[in-house]
Amino acid sequence: MVGDRPAKEAMNERIELQRRRIAAARGESPADLVLRGGSVVNVFSGEIAVRDLAVKDGVIVGLGEGYLAAEERDVSGSFLLPGFIEGHLHIESSMMMPRSLGAALVVHGTTALIADPHEIANVMGMDGIRLMLEDSRDIPFDFFFMAPSCVPATHMETSGAELHAGDLAPLLYEPRILGLAEMMNFPGVLAGDEEVLRKIDLFRNRVVDGHSPGLTGRDLQAYVTAGIGSDHESFALAEGREKVEAGMMLMIREGTSARNLAALLPLVNRANWNRFCLVHDDLHAEDLAERGHLDHLLRRAVQLGLDAVTAVRLATINPAHYFGLRRRGALAPGYRADIAVAKELESFEIQAVYKDGILVAEEGRLTGIQPWGVTDRAPVRPPFPEPLRIAPFTPERLGMPHPGGEARVIGLVPGELITRVLTLPVPAVQARVQTDVANDILKLCVVERHKASGRIGLGLVQGFGLERGALASSVAHDSHNVIAVGVDDASIHQAVMRVRDMGGGLVVAAEGRVLAEVSLEVAGLMTRAPFEELVQKIRAAKDRASELGATVPEPFMALSFLALPVIPELKLTDQGLVDVNRFAVVPVFPAQGQGNGASTSSGQAHEER
Amino acid sequence: MVGDRPAKEAMNERIELQRRRIAAARGESPADLVLRGGSVVNVFSGEIAVRDLAVKDGVIVGLGEGYLAAEERDVSGSFLLPGFIEGHLHIESSMMMPRSLGAALVVHGTTALIADPHEIANVMGMDGIRLMLEDSRDIPFDFFFMAPSCVPATHMETSGAELHAGDLAPLLYEPRILGLAEMMNFPGVLAGDEEVLRKIDLFRNRVVDGHSPGLTGRDLQAYVTAGIGSDHESFALAEGREKVEAGMMLMIREGTSARNLAALLPLVNRANWNRFCLVHDDLHAEDLAERGHLDHLLRRAVQLGLDAVTAVRLATINPAHYFGLRRRGALAPGYRADIAVAKELESFEIQAVYKDGILVAEEGRLTGIQPWGVTDRAPVRPPFPEPLRIAPFTPERLGMPHPGGEARVIGLVPGELITRVLTLPVPAVQARVQTDVANDILKLCVVERHKASGRIGLGLVQGFGLERGALASSVAHDSHNVIAVGVDDASIHQAVMRVRDMGGGLVVAAEGRVLAEVSLEVAGLMTRAPFEELVQKIRAAKDRASELGATVPEPFMALSFLALPVIPELKLTDQGLVDVNRFAVVPVFPAQGQGNGASTSSGQAHEER
Repeated sequence: MVGDRPAKEAMNERIELQRRRIAAARGESPADLVLRGGSVVNVFSGEIAVRDLAVKDGVIVGLGEGYLAAEERDVSGSFLLPGFIEGHLHIESSMMMPRSLGAALVVHGTTALIADPHEIANVMGMDGIRLMLEDSRDIPFDFFFMAPSCVPATHMETSGAELHAGDLAPLLYEPRILGLAEMMNFPGVLAGDEEVLRKIDLFRNRVVDGHSPGLTGRDLQAYVTAGIGSDHESFALAEGREKVEAGMMLMIREGTSARNLAALLPLVNRANWNRFCLVHDDLHAEDLAERGHLDHLLRRAVQLGLDAVTAVRLATINPAHYFGLRRRGALAPGYRADIAVAKELESFEIQAVYKDGILVAEEGRLTGIQPWGVTDRAPVRPPFPEPLRIAPFTPERLGMPHPGGEARVIGLVPGELITRVLTLPVPAVQARVQTDVANDILKLCVVERHKASGRIGLGLVQGFGLERGALASSVAHDSHNVIAVGVDDASIHQAVMRVRDMGGGLVVAAEGRVLAEVSLEVAGLMTRAPFEELVQKIRAAKDRASELGATVPEPFMALSFLALPVIPELKLTDQGLVDVNRFAVVPVFPAQGQGNGASTSSGQAHEER
Repeated sequence: MVGDRPAKEAMNERIELQRRRIAAARGESPADLVLRGGSVVNVFSGEIAVRDLAVKDGVIVGLGEGYLAAEERDVSGSFLLPGFIEGHLHIESSMMMPRSLGAALVVHGTTALIADPHEIANVMGMDGIRLMLEDSRDIPFDFFFMAPSCVPATHMETSGAELHAGDLAPLLYEPRILGLAEMMNFPGVLAGDEEVLRKIDLFRNRVVDGHSPGLTGRDLQAYVTAGIGSDHESFALAEGREKVEAGMMLMIREGTSARNLAALLPLVNRANWNRFCLVHDDLHAEDLAERGHLDHLLRRAVQLGLDAVTAVRLATINPAHYFGLRRRGALAPGYRADIAVAKELESFEIQAVYKDGILVAEEGRLTGIQPWGVTDRAPVRPPFPEPLRIAPFTPERLGMPHPGGEARVIGLVPGELITRVLTLPVPAVQARVQTDVANDILKLCVVERHKASGRIGLGLVQGFGLERGALASSVAHDSHNVIAVGVDDASIHQAVMRVRDMGGGLVVAAEGRVLAEVSLEVAGLMTRAPFEELVQKIRAAKDRASELGATVPEPFMALSFLALPVIPELKLTDQGLVDVNRFAVVPVFPAQGQGNGASTSSGQAHEER
C-alpha cells in the first residue's frame, strides 16, 4: 500500500484541480484569467462567435458571458485561436535546441510541435533522443517526438548510430513519444523487410508517419496497408488526392527546402478538410526570423483562397486528432489554455500568446515570465565543445588521382534536392585532379567524423560558383559527417579542421583565414546560442560565401543534401561517390572500371595501406 | 527469455500476416476476395468512386483495378459502405444476449457496437460485465463496452450491485473496454462529488461519455470541463448546437424510446459533420425486426435531407474516431474488411455484409458460415433459470391501508418517460385501497429481487387502461427489481411469482392463468432464445395485454420506466414512492404526514414486525 501512496496523492491532486475548475466553470469561484469579448474561432462548429473565455489552473473552463477572474484582458476586436500545432518538423533543421526553438516559435502562436529527432539520432543514437526529451521539458511549449525509423538512412555512409527495432522499444514508455517517425524506407516496406516491419509492428497501436514521394497505385496501397498513416512528401495534386483517398493524413509541407502549399491546397474542400494539416518538415532559423511559422502558412493559405476557419483547423485540431493529442487544438472547456490572439484572420498577426493560461508572448516578444534559459538539469552527454572525432589528416589526403578520361561530376539543380550526373572533362596536373573555376567544377569531400575512421569521400561538383576558398559543414544529411566544397585543398582542409575544433558548425575559409563560422556545438547540428545571435551569424556566413563567389542561393543547405544518398542522382558520402539510381558506390572516373564498392577508384581516399 | 516467447511468436505471426497483405496489395500474390466494380463510399475524401476492393486475411489491402483473388464477386451497380458502428446502445434493451443481438444486427450492415452494460451491472455487478464480454467473443461482430458509471443509479432503490471507482479499475486492462459509460450523475459532477470525479479520473485517458438532458450554459461548460466527451440526450436544436460548440461529440439518438433525429439533424452542416454520430440508446427486438438498425437511421437521415455520404460518416468513421477505434469505419487499405453492400444510397437496402472479409449476411439472412450459437465457454455465473431472489409473500402483502384523503397517483404521459404527480380520490373497502377501473387507477408494486429482503414498494398509477389481470416484468430501470401493475392483488401476485420462477421475464396474467410470458433468464433482462422466437413472444405478450384492456401502446416499456427515480415527477421503487423533484420518498397519502424516508405510510409494505 505504501507504494500506492504517490499514485493516490497524484489522483487526489488531479481531483482537487478538477473540483476547482468545475467551480470556476460554474461561476461559483473566480477564474484565473478571463479574455473578454474576443471572436473565438470554434474548430468544432466551424463558426466564429464573440465569447468571454475563462481559464482556471491552465485549462479553459468556460466560454460564455459574465465570468470573473483575478486577471482580465479585453480582447474585443481580436480573434482567439487555439495555439498552433506543428505536425512534422526536424528541430535540428533550425540549428536550435528545442527550448530555444520553442521560444522562437511561441511568439508566432505555435504552442506544440511533433518532432522527428532523426538527425541527432543519426549522430548520437538514443542518447540524442534523450537529450532532446530532456532539453524540451519544463518550458511553456509542448514538444512531442516520434521515434526515428531510419537510422542510419542507408548503408552507403557512416553514421554515428544505428537504431534497430529493439532499440526503439523503450521509447514506447515515454509519454511524449507519440509513434514512429516518417518511414522513409518505403522500398523496405514494400519488400516486406523484417527490420522495417518490426519497427512498424512495435508502434502498431500508435501513429506511424510516412514519407513516400511520388508513391501511387498499388505500391501506395501496400504502403498504407502496412500501417502508414500520413505523408508529407506529396508535391502533385493527383498524388495528394490519391493519398487522401487511401486514408492518409496529408501533411501539406511548406518549409525552407520544399514548398508544396500552392500545389496541394486546392485539394482541401468542404468534404475532406479534416484530412489535412500544415507542416514545415524543415525550417531554418533565418527563415523563421523572416517569415514566421504556422502564422505564415495560415496567411499564405488564406491568400491562396482557403477560408480562414478551415485553415486554422489544419494547424490545430487536425494534427491534434491525428496524433491523438487529447484536449489540445481547440478552444473548448477542458482543453489546455493554449491560445493565440490574432489581430485578424487575413494577416494572422499574433498579438499575444497564452500557454497553459499564462501570457508567454506579446507583440512578437517573450514576456519573460517563463524559464526559457538553459536547463539546470545535466544533459545526458556533455554536448559542449568536444572536437568532432575526425582522424588527423593533411591537405594532401584530399588529392585525387586523374587516370584520364572524363569524370562523373555532381550537377547541382538550383532549388532542388536532386542532382544530375554530369560527365565532364576535368583538368589534371601531374596526374592529379585540378578544380576548374572557369567551368565551376569544384572539389567536394565528406570526412567521417563519428568514429575517427579516417574515411574521406572525394568527388567533384558543379553549380556552387565559388571562385576561391571553401565552405564546410557538419550538417550533412543523414549521417552528418563533415562535408566541404572548395577551390583549393588548403582552404577545404582549414574549413574542415575548424568545424572539427568547434565540435561542429558551419565555416567559410579562404587564403588561410576563417572568414565566418557558426558554432553547432550540440552534436554538430544545433547550438545553444540565442536565436538572434544564430540568425546573425548564419547571415554573415552566407554573405562571406557570396563574397567568395558562391552563386547558389543557400550554399550550406545545398551542401547539406549532397551527402544524402536516398535522393537521386549522384551523391557523395564518406564511402565514396553514390549513384543513387543504381544504389551503388561508383568511381569518379568511369573509364577506370565499374566500381562495386569502396575502393580508391570510387572516390574514397584511403589511408595508405 | 522463455516468458518472451509467446510475445515474440505473436509478433512473428503479425509480421508474416503483414508481409502477405503487402504482397497482395502490390498484386504480387492473389488476394482472398475481390469485390469488383462497386461504387465505394470514401469517408475520407467524401467522394464515391468505382473501385475494385481487395481483401487479404481479413483486411482491406487495396482499392484500385486489376486485383485477382481466390473469391471474386461482381458488385457493380451496388455501393460499398464501411460496416456501420453503433456508438451507444444498451444491449439489454433488446432483451438479447450480445451474440444473438450481433447476429440480428449484422444483417442490417452493422459490424461493431459500443455498449454500456449498465443494466446487467445493476443486477450482477462486475460478473454481469464479464458475462457480456464473454458472450460477445469469437463472433463475426465487434462488441466494445464502456464501464458503467452509475451503479446504482440512486440510493432510493435496491440494486443487485454497487460499482465504485475501485471496482472499475480492473476494466482499464480489458482491451474491449473503451472508457467510462454515460455519466448520468451530472449533478454529482457539478457538485464535485468525490466518487464521481474518481471514476472520471480513472478513465481520463480514455473516452468518457455523457448524459446531460437539457444541460446548458455554465453548468454545461462545467460538465465538459470535467472531461465528458459526448452527449446523446439532446432533444432541442439550440441545446445540441451549444453542446457541439462546447466540443462534445453529439450522438443523435433515434431509438425505441427516444427519437431526436428530426429535431437535431438540421444541425449537421459542411463545417461540422465530423462532430455527430447516429445512435440508438435503446432498441427493442420488435423494433429491430420492423425497422432495422443503422440502415434505418441512414434511410431516415437521407429522407430528412442529409447527403448520403455525410450520413454514412455519422454511422462509421465518426464513431470510430471518437472512440479511438483504429482501422475501423472506412474502406481503405489496412482497415478491417467490414463492408456493407447496399443497393442504393436512398433505401440503404443491405444486400450483403462482410465481416473481416467473410460474407456473413446476404439479403437479410445470415450465411451460416460463422458460429453465432451459444458459446461453449462456461459463463461466469450460471445464467440459466434460477429463480429470482424474492422473499416469499402472499397476495395480502399487496394490500394498502387507506387512511382517508386523496392519494398521490403516478400519471403516465403517453410516449414520454416522465410522469405527472396526480392527486386523486381512490375508493376504499374496509380502510383498504381499491383499484378503480372506471377511472383507470391501478395498483403498482415493485418487489425487491436481488437480496430477498422482502421489500415491496406499493403505489397507484393512472394511464395503463387495464380492465382486468396484471402485467409483471423483471426489467425495471435501473435496479431491475420486479415491477407489476394490475387490477387485483391475486393477478399481480401470480404474475410476479411467474416472473420469479422463470428467473426473470415478462408475464401477463389474469383470473388465475398466465396468458403470456417471455423468459428473460439471463439476469432477468435477456434471453438466449433466438431473435425470431423472442420477437414472436413479445408480440404475443403485448397482444394479451391489449386484450386485458391495456391502452398504453408499449405497456412493458412504460412499466419498466416507472421504477426509474431519476426521471421526474413521481416514480415507485422497492423503497416506496419517490418524488423525483424533491429526490425523496413520500407517502401515497399526503394527508398522513410528510414522509421523510421509508415508512409504512410511504407506500412501503413491510414485513410485520
